[in-house]
Amino acid sequence: MQNDGANADDDGRQAPPPDAWNFAPNEALLRLSALSVRAVLGKVKSGIMADNPTIADSRPVIPLGHGDPSAFPCFSTAPEAVSAVAAALLSGRHNSYSSGVGLEPARRAVARHLSEDLPCELSPDDVFLTGGCSQAIEVVCSALARPGANLLLPRPGYRFYEARAGFNGMEARYFGLLPERGWEVDLEAVEAIADGNTVAMVIVNPGNPCGNVYTYDHLAKVAETARKLGIFVIADEVYAHLTFGKNGFVPMGVFGSVAPVLTLGSISKRWVVPGWRLGWIVTNDPNGVFQRTKLLASIKSYLYVTSSPATFIQAALPELLENTKKEFFDKTIDILRQTADICWEKLQGINGITCPSKPEGSMFVMVKLDLSCLQDIEDDMDFCCRLAKEELVVVLPGCAVGYKNWLRVTFAIGPSSLKDGLDRLKSFCLRHSKSKKVI
Amino acid sequence: MQNDGANADDDGRQAPPPDAWNFAPNEALLRLSALSVRAVLGKVKSGIMADNPTIADSRPVIPLGHGDPSAFPCFSTAPEAVSAVAAALLSGRHNSYSSGVGLEPARRAVARHLSEDLPCELSPDDVFLTGGCSQAIEVVCSALARPGANLLLPRPGYRFYEARAGFNGMEARYFGLLPERGWEVDLEAVEAIADGNTVAMVIVNPGNPCGNVYTYDHLAKVAETARKLGIFVIADEVYAHLTFGKNGFVPMGVFGSVAPVLTLGSISKRWVVPGWRLGWIVTNDPNGVFQRTKLLASIKSYLYVTSSPATFIQAALPELLENTKKEFFDKTIDILRQTADICWEKLQGINGITCPSKPEGSMFVMVKLDLSCLQDIEDDMDFCCRLAKEELVVVLPGCAVGYKNWLRVTFAIGPSSLKDGLDRLKSFCLRHSKSKKVI
Repeated sequence: MQNDGANADDDGRQAPPPDAWNFAPNEALLRLSALSVRAVLGKVKSGIMADNPTIADSRPVIPLGHGDPSAFPCFSTAPEAVSAVAAALLSGRHNSYSSGVGLEPARRAVARHLSEDLPCELSPDDVFLTGGCSQAIEVVCSALARPGANLLLPRPGYRFYEARAGFNGMEARYFGLLPERGWEVDLEAVEAIADGNTVAMVIVNPGNPCGNVYTYDHLAKVAETARKLGIFVIADEVYAHLTFGKNGFVPMGVFGSVAPVLTLGSISKRWVVPGWRLGWIVTNDPNGVFQRTKLLASIKSYLYVTSSPATFIQAALPELLENTKKEFFDKTIDILRQTADICWEKLQGINGITCPSKPEGSMFVMVKLDLSCLQDIEDDMDFCCRLAKEELVVVLPGCAVGYKNWLRVTFAIGPSSLKDGLDRLKSFCLRHSKSKKVI
Repeated sequence: MQNDGANADDDGRQAPPPDAWNFAPNEALLRLSALSVRAVLGKVKSGIMADNPTIADSRPVIPLGHGDPSAFPCFSTAPEAVSAVAAALLSGRHNSYSSGVGLEPARRAVARHLSEDLPCELSPDDVFLTGGCSQAIEVVCSALARPGANLLLPRPGYRFYEARAGFNGMEARYFGLLPERGWEVDLEAVEAIADGNTVAMVIVNPGNPCGNVYTYDHLAKVAETARKLGIFVIADEVYAHLTFGKNGFVPMGVFGSVAPVLTLGSISKRWVVPGWRLGWIVTNDPNGVFQRTKLLASIKSYLYVTSSPATFIQAALPELLENTKKEFFDKTIDILRQTADICWEKLQGINGITCPSKPEGSMFVMVKLDLSCLQDIEDDMDFCCRLAKEELVVVLPGCAVGYKNWLRVTFAIGPSSLKDGLDRLKSFCLRHSKSKKVI
């Protein structure tokens, strides 16, 4: 906006000087947002834009940092999903506000959909619809927050939780995931950091950023630990069913009678439509703990004072969940299995990088940088910025998931682009290798 | 969910007793949500469901409490709006996450659309897209909040602001609107309650709940007052252009060079699609105060850690804004003018109710209850609950907008239903009149 010169003070009263406005920014908010994957990836990508005479400009940018493969033709969504939303829109019957908790038929459809994998039947009252899994995290963190409370988070992990917990005045405490044990939760660490103010622990399964899938037995131990500590489990299952290794997906809700579970999910990943912004919070709590402790009332209260997902997209949910063909899901899994294989094989041959385990779920794998093999590379952020600048390959530095000097590599991308990207990553490491003796 | 009995503790360790979970609810959150229009209307409507042998069940419920007329055929949205969204969905090109601030073409379209009524041209960088005006309020309150800050709000007013401010630890302070002066802002009251911790004042124009439309001169005085106090203006213009009286709509942004203005708006009301959840925050700030004070950075930061509106609905915005025909807007205004006239005339003849001014904008009018004329009515809440139970007419009690013993009546409903509802309101007042001598 251009100044139109209309701020002269006609009546002779002293106008406030330019810095006299009462506002002062909340520095914590500014700091927290810098943790976001978006902000870190933005910083990495900014190097590509800068002058760079050393590379051939004609090469395409290879994005291996994202969690959203929807732009790649091989990951286009199911036609049934598009039809369902189009029909709801064109009906003209879903232009109104929805209730805070979501449309009843949509809640019923989610309950039915998730119950297929659970020992007991969910009811529509167990389901709250949200604007994607991000808003589900926002709602849960807001509903759990009270002065002095703390939340246990996995490291490495998705730092959106830390940002939302922090924004609501809740302390984030970290327990490790164990790379040598397929990124299982370090349950001793959980017990060591929990106290009487710990309200819940978060697990992400299938894992972002690690690509792991937890076994039934491990999830049972998580539930037992939570029960012992008197804390809830928040199970982030936004990558539910995106598994292609030895472990099938087991929902944490199976153990809701051991410790109450809040399951977070969405259509974003399985239907590859993150831009549609439709997710859910589901209570797996046969013993009624959430009702008794007023967590349910807190969730509903927060939903009254926040925005809901678009009503016609909610209205499409029953048809979308019921009509999507098995072939669509199978196709997605086949591609992910193929690209995970490519990723795993290619990574083995790169000097300066080690990969503790083959990804079995989600869209990511974590790899460790061995800086002693690489010259002139300061840390993971430096590695990613230079990789982007020199090879036009975007990878997420581990600092964005709380794991310094590791990288998160996305394999949810067309196979030929993935091969190209990993070959460039190899060239980069070779060029920056200290020994120059590489496989 | 039914208990499946799996919570037995096999290993003999003491299970926590049922009340040993660490969670304790945030009582402030529970209290705040009770202020919401949704919660209060829910309470009023609950009376209808109760056993009621005194009324003929066959009469339809007449909703005069809502702010969402989209379900009435005479308020159906523009076909151009539906086509634009359907095209964006079916293209398959907008299934990805959008950036936190919104898609650039959509931001550009909003900038162009709003600039038509402004002295200087907005740029896309002045525009941030949100999930309706509710999320715009949420983002602004979150970006402004810091310990000790306070926000000045109109009374009567939309209490969502109070809930969001309170949730972010910001104090809400109230200035009056003056019914005897067409609900203008009591600027002396604003000066009296502001202090060095006041960051902004909110105006709602066209007015919810009062149905007033501010003149250019009054808005100029609001801007001067804000400048003098060193505070920003938050202009809630969700009812922009929905005016049908002597005062045309003037955007507060016209005075952005006097005091910086955050304009909140959406397609919800003018296009009658509140369920589509698309709104905006726009900075009207030719002097760059928001940049300098880091409010812009704070808004962007918050947008990084919250959910965005659906991408394909954002993508439809340029076509929606440019292609909607004047005839559609004219038709909506014609109906609102007609229903506002009906409302005003019918209200004149009701004993126990006075209406200080004819509505000229938005979808509402505020009327005052004279409890001295009515017997057995305790207050506005009691009035509304009994009206709902006895006459199946739903009206919002003033307590929901901070104005005890007033009512907010919606006239955005089909004319014949409106007449029916107001006739029933008259019967109710007649039946509860002390004098029984009524017009």
